[in-house]
Amino acid sequence: MSQKNVQVLLANRPHGWVQESDFRIIESDLPAVREGEVLVKNQYLSLDPYMRGRMNASKSYAASAELGQVMVGGTVGVIVESKNPAFQVDDAVLGYLGWQQYGISSGKDLQKLPKSEQIPLSAYLGVVGMPGITAWFGLMRIGQPKPGETVVVSAASGAVGSVVGQLARSQGCRAVGIAGGQTKCDYVVQELGFDACVDYKGDHLAEALAMAAPQGIDIYFDNVGGEILDTVLEQLNAFARIPLCGRISQYNATEPYRMRNFGSFLTNRVTLQGFIVSEHLEMWSQATQELSKLVTTGELKYRESVAQGLEHAPAAFIGMLKGENLGKQLVKLF
Amino acid sequence: MSQKNVQVLLANRPHGWVQESDFRIIESDLPAVREGEVLVKNQYLSLDPYMRGRMNASKSYAASAELGQVMVGGTVGVIVESKNPAFQVDDAVLGYLGWQQYGISSGKDLQKLPKSEQIPLSAYLGVVGMPGITAWFGLMRIGQPKPGETVVVSAASGAVGSVVGQLARSQGCRAVGIAGGQTKCDYVVQELGFDACVDYKGDHLAEALAMAAPQGIDIYFDNVGGEILDTVLEQLNAFARIPLCGRISQYNATEPYRMRNFGSFLTNRVTLQGFIVSEHLEMWSQATQELSKLVTTGELKYRESVAQGLEHAPAAFIGMLKGENLGKQLVKLF
Repeated sequence: MSQKNVQVLLANRPHGWVQESDFRIIESDLPAVREGEVLVKNQYLSLDPYMRGRMNASKSYAASAELGQVMVGGTVGVIVESKNPAFQVDDAVLGYLGWQQYGISSGKDLQKLPKSEQIPLSAYLGVVGMPGITAWFGLMRIGQPKPGETVVVSAASGAVGSVVGQLARSQGCRAVGIAGGQTKCDYVVQELGFDACVDYKGDHLAEALAMAAPQGIDIYFDNVGGEILDTVLEQLNAFARIPLCGRISQYNATEPYRMRNFGSFLTNRVTLQGFIVSEHLEMWSQATQELSKLVTTGELKYRESVAQGLEHAPAAFIGMLKGENLGKQLVKLF
Repeated sequence: MSQKNVQVLLANRPHGWVQESDFRIIESDLPAVREGEVLVKNQYLSLDPYMRGRMNASKSYAASAELGQVMVGGTVGVIVESKNPAFQVDDAVLGYLGWQQYGISSGKDLQKLPKSEQIPLSAYLGVVGMPGITAWFGLMRIGQPKPGETVVVSAASGAVGSVVGQLARSQGCRAVGIAGGQTKCDYVVQELGFDACVDYKGDHLAEALAMAAPQGIDIYFDNVGGEILDTVLEQLNAFARIPLCGRISQYNATEPYRMRNFGSFLTNRVTLQGFIVSEHLEMWSQATQELSKLVTTGELKYRESVAQGLEHAPAAFIGMLKGENLGKQLVKLF
């Protein structure tokens, strides 16, 4: 019997905003599992802003996804067939099997996951997975927060930003979010415990930010780039640090935003570092442990936005790029 | 007898380009030297780009110079009268006595200088002084050069840039200068030993830079900011470092240049750090020793542009901001 598989392929490289038509959904036969391989039934697919960069042919911080091939992405699932002695049927695994229901793997790129009551498998794509580790690395290693400092984070209700602010609080810092709309701001303050949150869709971002960060900004964890970053630059304190994690405001832009306040980097002796967390594997183990502990104790809260069914992945991805999600955006495949 | 003193005061805060009329030259009586003080006869006044920032009321990386007061600046001179047991008449000292022939000091801000055949006093304002140490700190500590990497430095024929490129060569790097005009470029390559130099006043800066740095740019030591920085950003390698030292292209601008290629910081996982060397005093001793040794052995070459007489300091300062000097700009006071 040959297993049927649903896959989402990259059909076109978008110019400007991604369209659903840039993807193509197909049903295919799974090849047989060969010696040394396993077959994984994916339970969740992760949707992340970095994927927009992979859709371009131009240089980004990772290789492009290939036209006509399965779109790349992180997954959690369970082994349903194993010809690799390292894996048993029913083992839960984290992988990078892409936008498809089933994936075949040699096992090299799979990581076995513990089965825990407190930490569901989906969390390994979010709060204790790549986005959470991104927050941990950027804040702790690049930001180096000190008690009493003010930490501002953009996309504060998202998978990365929500962890940044809560970690900042745990370090004794004032945590200020920037998010789009009152619902997200309320979530960030009331549920995640940030000290304040500024709605960037409101008027007078600069004034609102100055009120939320009256002592100035010591660390700005940037997920968005563009005009919000430019506004933050005017309110930095001396020796501010900027972990530069993402530029979601620019990913679908055909003309780049032109930065006005670059002078702040010298005036305030700022340190900025662009990073991609997969290039810092040496600290994944420590970060995962610390994040898992905080989730288990309830100190680190998170939410998930879950699209049902792989056929809704393209719309959910576009929605995430437009900021329609709250917390980690996932697709539940079955 | 009261000693006559010539002083240059800050008369106006410039808007845009500095004018000679922003300074006022006066002759005054020196107050008597009190117990614990010394009188210094300044031999050389240092002229440095950072002084332009001090002329503004707005926030820079240091306090503003005061209107109607002596313009600030570094000096070397000799003690001509001492009521402080730590100093003898004829001692040579480095100080920050400003744009004046004579200065009175408690001695706290003075540093005694060795009298050496190989290193003249004026060099303590340049190659083995603040500019040289700026080059050393930015390149060695922030840039962290590795053999085989390409180091690009702007204002390459200036007091800081000329040291950056020579230090880069001593670290086994390819050193590429950016300077204004063929004379400066010839000096940088033929006399200082850079591998290449690009004339930013020529057409096609990007193409010329790509030819001079065919392997891409690993370290960009930036003294100028603006469009040159923006052009360099397009040619950075992954994990490039940018010691951000100055922005001379912007100091007299009334509207800031708007940066187009900010995305390179994330795409290439760049680390940028703005710095001011006087905030890193812990490494001055090591830097001075290393630079002095390289000057003594002839491995580190330098030139000085010397204006004769304090009354020519304003014109020399404006000339330096326009790039008319080669190497360290000084004023010889007597």
